[in-house]
Amino acid sequence: MIYDTIAAISTAVGEGGIAIIRISGPDAIEATARIFRSRIDLREAESHTLHYGHIADPKTGEQVEEVIVTLMRGPRSFTAEDVVEINAHGGVVAVKKVLDVVLLQDGLRLAEPGEFTKRAFLNGRIDLMQAEAVIDLIRSKSDRAFSVARKQAEGTLSKRIKALRQTVIELLAHIEVNIDYPEHDVEDLTSAYIREQSDKALDEIGKLLKTANEGKILREGIMTAIVGRPNVGKSSLLNMLAQENKAIVTDIPGTTRDVIEEYVTLGPIPLRLLDTAGIRETNDVVEKIGVERSHTALEEADLILFVLNYNEEMHEDDRLLLEKMADRPVIIIINKMDLSGKLDMDEVERLCKPESIVRMSVLEEEGLDLLEKTISTMFFEGQLDSGDLTYVSNVRHISLLKRAQQSLGDAIEATHSGIPIDLIQIDVRSAWESLGEILGDEVGDSLIDQIFSQFCLGK
Amino acid sequence: MIYDTIAAISTAVGEGGIAIIRISGPDAIEATARIFRSRIDLREAESHTLHYGHIADPKTGEQVEEVIVTLMRGPRSFTAEDVVEINAHGGVVAVKKVLDVVLLQDGLRLAEPGEFTKRAFLNGRIDLMQAEAVIDLIRSKSDRAFSVARKQAEGTLSKRIKALRQTVIELLAHIEVNIDYPEHDVEDLTSAYIREQSDKALDEIGKLLKTANEGKILREGIMTAIVGRPNVGKSSLLNMLAQENKAIVTDIPGTTRDVIEEYVTLGPIPLRLLDTAGIRETNDVVEKIGVERSHTALEEADLILFVLNYNEEMHEDDRLLLEKMADRPVIIIINKMDLSGKLDMDEVERLCKPESIVRMSVLEEEGLDLLEKTISTMFFEGQLDSGDLTYVSNVRHISLLKRAQQSLGDAIEATHSGIPIDLIQIDVRSAWESLGEILGDEVGDSLIDQIFSQFCLGK
Repeated sequence: MIYDTIAAISTAVGEGGIAIIRISGPDAIEATARIFRSRIDLREAESHTLHYGHIADPKTGEQVEEVIVTLMRGPRSFTAEDVVEINAHGGVVAVKKVLDVVLLQDGLRLAEPGEFTKRAFLNGRIDLMQAEAVIDLIRSKSDRAFSVARKQAEGTLSKRIKALRQTVIELLAHIEVNIDYPEHDVEDLTSAYIREQSDKALDEIGKLLKTANEGKILREGIMTAIVGRPNVGKSSLLNMLAQENKAIVTDIPGTTRDVIEEYVTLGPIPLRLLDTAGIRETNDVVEKIGVERSHTALEEADLILFVLNYNEEMHEDDRLLLEKMADRPVIIIINKMDLSGKLDMDEVERLCKPESIVRMSVLEEEGLDLLEKTISTMFFEGQLDSGDLTYVSNVRHISLLKRAQQSLGDAIEATHSGIPIDLIQIDVRSAWESLGEILGDEVGDSLIDQIFSQFCLGK
Repeated sequence: MIYDTIAAISTAVGEGGIAIIRISGPDAIEATARIFRSRIDLREAESHTLHYGHIADPKTGEQVEEVIVTLMRGPRSFTAEDVVEINAHGGVVAVKKVLDVVLLQDGLRLAEPGEFTKRAFLNGRIDLMQAEAVIDLIRSKSDRAFSVARKQAEGTLSKRIKALRQTVIELLAHIEVNIDYPEHDVEDLTSAYIREQSDKALDEIGKLLKTANEGKILREGIMTAIVGRPNVGKSSLLNMLAQENKAIVTDIPGTTRDVIEEYVTLGPIPLRLLDTAGIRETNDVVEKIGVERSHTALEEADLILFVLNYNEEMHEDDRLLLEKMADRPVIIIINKMDLSGKLDMDEVERLCKPESIVRMSVLEEEGLDLLEKTISTMFFEGQLDSGDLTYVSNVRHISLLKRAQQSLGDAIEATHSGIPIDLIQIDVRSAWESLGEILGDEVGDSLIDQIFSQFCLGK
């Protein structure tokens, strides 16, 4: 299929040494040739070559920017179409000026977010699961999340889904033969075969889904809310974890008003830290908004780090908060262990599980190891260092795998209750379709649009 | 001269479709070849070609990232050395992982900020003035600033400085002949020649310096402080100018605590807007810091936008502030002109120059044209649309031009006071050296280091 020609800035926006405008589609080379002043004619250049020159506005003749242009003729390109990349100086204005001239050319339009990757998918260069991994690659906040995404982008996970589908299609073929040629009727045999093949598929689906929870955490980070009364050292804890002064730290209670978010890796564990306003009754209108946001963060968090000070007695507010969080995944951080104790530790241990108490001194940077170990035990059963990086991490994939699981379960059940084989066929076909949807074989345009709209511009 | 091999991330950091690691120096190709798994051997590849493959850690064999590698053999490259650029997926982790593997190679080290451009200068591909323009290109916040920087990067300004130096060197040669061969003594003639050539040079220096003020403003933007009592609509004005909700706007006086900075172009005029905390007496410690910062911003600003509300009477604080700003470049913005008037306009006109009063309604987005016109008159005598974009905008260049101006002035004066010609020679030589310093001919290592350290990493 032939699409139109699209262009966008493909590097991150900001000050840098180089910025790239990527152009893809049938007019990519012709349109660039019209605005590119160089010793060579781009139309005649070989694929996979670089050329020095200037981008000029063809109307005014004015040279806009000094550039290097690279040329990749389809299908040997990211999109499998003709692709031109213009390397300009990496300033915001420079790249914007070049893009403006590019977009003035006939037949070119600004690419939508993710549209280059979408082309790669629509042109059959990669499957949908691989395409989805591309955004994970870009967004990944930790080495592990990146490695997981790379495995997926390379198609490791796709291969397993394809193998699964092969198992299901064999089953489906067997059933259809049975329906089309009832004279061959060996229904008992078929029932046994359905159970056998379905079990085989279910076993693999089970294995994949078992990785899902960890995969999702690796991909997105554990959403971690740091909570506690004002001035117990929440922002200092965040800063220690982030190893930089992201939050404004002062000794004035109520300094942090907004929820501050920060990605951090604690050893191998990716955390999405939310520093929150100290929770207290307040009449300050702006601070009140902050306290409300803290409560929301608290409810949505995967993990709560509740900070108490060793050198202070427990406050009634602390008791209320601890009670409120009884059923939540919470770690109690006893901060300021370097100071003399006023906190009644017996009471703390009565109010919460002993294994969830971590003694620290944020000021002295002590207790970080124990915190890491405690989180690792809670979320990964302590085993985060296994080498296998094939995780199902995408919510869409997880729900489709669950749907396939349900359909195959239904099929097995049906064989036991003597349901006619043409009804069982519906379940098996549904499983086959769900698996196909993961790879993008059976998906509608609107879903595809929705998936790629999550991408950043220029990919 | 042969340098070592350096590497750095050359694209802006953030989420993007593509990120580039640039490697430059004698080992660039060999080092990349060791970690690049591809169908071809990079060592044998032709210059200006692209190659698809994977970056792998040579120790573990583990594939780290799918990449496109481009190759430019020196001197046909940005640095005039062998340059390899690795195009990776544009995520923070992806590019960091590739850089880590690159830097593990023998003989490679992380480039300092600006070191690639410094190499281009040290290898004689560009002069110092052109090199300095590269950072202006990247940092430019407006189309005009970018165009000015591009002229300089291309060497338009360098050519004028070189011509100036030619004038001065001819003069110097003439003087030296006169000193070396006193038998040719035609001192009167020489004095006339010194005055003539110096005048010629001074005329050109004068022309260049005349562009300096506008050049500096175009480059950096007019540092503009928006001030006024709390809740007169300062943040709303900033947002109107920025056309987006950068500052948090609420109806609670004292909401803005930090000084918020924003680049804005008002027509062709680049403004560096500082939104400030409302200036008032306060006991809130955090707000107090904000008020102090406002006072500092006020003192450093090139332009003050002082906001009064048409529907409120003038406050004693306003009168004090107006008095304080009497000698500063200030524009009085009368906001909320859409509401009924309580402000005594006669008093306003008594307290400040009528031509500096601009009536606006920020809510109705009225009065922007007049504001632009008033600023243009104040800073550019209303003539910002001339086509000549050769501006001296760099503080270093300005001060060296002024030094050359001083030296040549001294030389002329000396001819009148009958000072011996070998003393005059010192002045002329000093002028020649100052001009040379602009182009980088006569500069020490420490100055060069200082200039390039202002660059971003990877350029």
